[in-house]
Amino acid sequence: MSELFPTPLQELADEFSSLPSIGKKNALRLALHVFSESPEFAKSFSHVLEELHQSVQHCTHCFHVSEREVCSVCSDTRRELSLLCIVEHSLDVLAIEQSGQYRGLYHVLGGVLSPADGVGPRQLHLSELEDRVKKSQFGEIIIATNPSMEGEATANYVARILKQYDVRVTRLARGMPTGGVLEYTDERTLGSAFEGRKEL
Amino acid sequence: MSELFPTPLQELADEFSSLPSIGKKNALRLALHVFSESPEFAKSFSHVLEELHQSVQHCTHCFHVSEREVCSVCSDTRRELSLLCIVEHSLDVLAIEQSGQYRGLYHVLGGVLSPADGVGPRQLHLSELEDRVKKSQFGEIIIATNPSMEGEATANYVARILKQYDVRVTRLARGMPTGGVLEYTDERTLGSAFEGRKEL
Repeated sequence: MSELFPTPLQELADEFSSLPSIGKKNALRLALHVFSESPEFAKSFSHVLEELHQSVQHCTHCFHVSEREVCSVCSDTRRELSLLCIVEHSLDVLAIEQSGQYRGLYHVLGGVLSPADGVGPRQLHLSELEDRVKKSQFGEIIIATNPSMEGEATANYVARILKQYDVRVTRLARGMPTGGVLEYTDERTLGSAFEGRKEL
Repeated sequence: MSELFPTPLQELADEFSSLPSIGKKNALRLALHVFSESPEFAKSFSHVLEELHQSVQHCTHCFHVSEREVCSVCSDTRRELSLLCIVEHSLDVLAIEQSGQYRGLYHVLGGVLSPADGVGPRQLHLSELEDRVKKSQFGEIIIATNPSMEGEATANYVARILKQYDVRVTRLARGMPTGGVLEYTDERTLGSAFEGRKEL
C-alpha cells in the first residue's frame, strides 16, 4: 500500500484513521476525496484544525466545550439554577437539550470510571463537582451517565460523594425505550421496566 | 446546536461532514475527539492537509495519484507493458494490486459516465487513453469499471472507442462472488453466472 500511494496522501489517511470509527480503507477513501477537491478545501480544513485549540476551551464551571471561559448554558440567566445534570460527555448535553425536557445546568465529567483504561476519579471532573455543590444551592442533582456497566459504577460513586451534601440525588429512569419491542428487549432492560413500573 | 457548541468546533464538524459517509452527528463526535487530543495532534493533521496538494499530483500517464510526474506503477520496469487495465478510481488500483492477479499497467478514468451528475466523456481521462493506445503497443486492454449501470455504460462506451485500434478488449468476468450463497444471489448476478458458465 505504501508504495502504491504517495506518502503525503498516506499520511493524511493515517490522520483520518486515527479518529474513532474510521477504518484504514475508509481513511484512504477520505484522503483521496480531499485530494479530488480543490486545494482551497484542504486549506480551509487545515485552517480550522489549526485554530481549534486556540479558540475552544472547557467551560470553567461545567466543563462543556466553550468559546469563552463560561459556556452558553452556564451564562444563560433563564436556566433553572437549582437543577444540575451530570453527564459523561459534551454530546450528551446536546442529546438532552434536543429532548427539550430539561432546563437546568450541566456538569460534564469527561468520561466514566474505567480502571482498565486508567480512568480513576482523578481523571474525571469530580473535585470540581464537589466544589460546585458546596458553593451552589442545588435542589436536585440528576445523574445521567449511560446505563452501561461503567456508567452505573460511576453513577453510584458520584451518588456516594453527593450524599454528604443536603441535596436530592436522582438517576434517569430505566425501562423500555419508546418504540421498543418487548419480544426483542434484553432481560436487564425488561428487569428495569418491571422494577420501575408505574400505576395507571 | 449552533449555540450549544462553539463556532470553531462547529466549523470543524462542518468540514468533517462535507466528506463522504460522515453524517452530522458523527462529524461533531470527530471534532470533539480532535479537541480532546493534544493541540499537536490537530497541528500535525492541519499540516498534512496543507501540504497535500503541493506534493501530490496525478500521474501524467495513467492518472493514478503520485508524488512524481510518473507514478510508481508506470515507472516500474518489471510490469507487463502489453497489458492495460482501465479502472474508475485510484482505490480500484489498490484492490487489483492486492488481488495479486495482475501485473500490467493501469489507466484511471477518474469516474464513470453519469449524465445526471454532469459527467460526460470529457470529464473522464478518455482522450488521454486514446493517445496512450495510439502510442503504445498494448496486446490486451481489460475494462475493469464496476459492474453497476454506469460502470457498464462506461465500459461499452470505452470498448467502442478502443475497437478502432488493433487491440484485444476484454471485460472482467461476472458471476457468483466467492463465498456467495446461491439462494441470496440477485437475479442479474445469477444470470451472468449462467451465461458465463465454464466446462468442467
